[in-house]
Amino acid sequence: MKQAIVVYSGGMDSFTLLNEVIASGEFDHVHALTFDYGQKHSKEIMFAMRAVGGMNVGQHKIVDVTSINQLLDSSLTATGGEIPEGHYEEDTMKSTVVPNRNMIMISLATGWAVSLGADTVFFGAHAGDHAIYPDCREEFVEAINEVTKIANYQSVEVRAPYLDFTKGEIALIGRKLHLDYGLAWTCYNGRAYACGKCGACQERLEAMEFAGISDPLEYEK
Amino acid sequence: MKQAIVVYSGGMDSFTLLNEVIASGEFDHVHALTFDYGQKHSKEIMFAMRAVGGMNVGQHKIVDVTSINQLLDSSLTATGGEIPEGHYEEDTMKSTVVPNRNMIMISLATGWAVSLGADTVFFGAHAGDHAIYPDCREEFVEAINEVTKIANYQSVEVRAPYLDFTKGEIALIGRKLHLDYGLAWTCYNGRAYACGKCGACQERLEAMEFAGISDPLEYEK
Repeated sequence: MKQAIVVYSGGMDSFTLLNEVIASGEFDHVHALTFDYGQKHSKEIMFAMRAVGGMNVGQHKIVDVTSINQLLDSSLTATGGEIPEGHYEEDTMKSTVVPNRNMIMISLATGWAVSLGADTVFFGAHAGDHAIYPDCREEFVEAINEVTKIANYQSVEVRAPYLDFTKGEIALIGRKLHLDYGLAWTCYNGRAYACGKCGACQERLEAMEFAGISDPLEYEK
Repeated sequence: MKQAIVVYSGGMDSFTLLNEVIASGEFDHVHALTFDYGQKHSKEIMFAMRAVGGMNVGQHKIVDVTSINQLLDSSLTATGGEIPEGHYEEDTMKSTVVPNRNMIMISLATGWAVSLGADTVFFGAHAGDHAIYPDCREEFVEAINEVTKIANYQSVEVRAPYLDFTKGEIALIGRKLHLDYGLAWTCYNGRAYACGKCGACQERLEAMEFAGISDPLEYEK
């Protein structure tokens, strides 16, 4: 039996990835793993739960890792500072980096994979992340595979198939799969409607436009 | 300012390591990181807190990661099965393996290191662990360094200086440093006194004997 785990935040990239891995038919069971790390946009998590209800997902685990926040320092977590507005730029967005986030998430996903006997962990890093986040680069994915290959009795492969895709190209995959992006939350602010102004919203809207999708999500007027 | 973090369980190996790193004088501040991952021997944690009180430790963080247990499956965590008695043997002790434990702990320690601006993470894997735990081997430490070097804006080095030391040799270091091993808990059972029978106790007692130390810890009659 071939099983995979998809690190699934509830945002548009991992929502697309989870759907694509299921649609590929490569795995008998595809499980989803969502982290509640106290992010201000925990609304993502509610969207993640709702979306999974309509998908052919094996197990969906939501793991509360908020206790880890005492080790980390970032404006993305509830105890941190203000979310910067405007486009992602290295200077402003560096403050939204959760230190070592991908290594932590992949470590935990790999632990679950070993428990389940799953041999693959997927995560949705994409080309737009490269410039800002060192742990969204090819060399990071290669290095982490050298660890997950040997850290346990069973080998786990980490795959990041969107590494060379822009967010617009990810939206194109979603369009091809007829995904409902009203089920995916992106905004870094956790208000009733998406703000449309933060870096995450702006990137999303540009991606939708690139893919010719009219974003079904509700935005603040 | 040069800072280090020592992954510190409260057991004799990491107790020795923490003391040795402080005594080395290589770092301006040495911080200790203890994980509460729901282990049955959480008594270790109480011992860790008490021991740190008498040491020149910068910050000591105890991070509750018990929510992670829903992902893992092991007799070491409170929801798992019985602790096997007798000497460590691959078959019986495989069941005490927490999947991907060292990668998870090092990921979190590296996150904290980045937050603090510390450049080194120490952990106390030793030669006796090699046969059983893949994540206590030289190749694991090498591979994980390739990740921690590039996963963040700042590089973090992971050091496991006891990798080629037996537990007896670690006790010899402790003897040289005049450590009080009554401050370090080892037993896998969390009762009032150490059981003296589990694999962990047996290894400790053999190490003490090798180093010519009379173990000051109290054992069940």
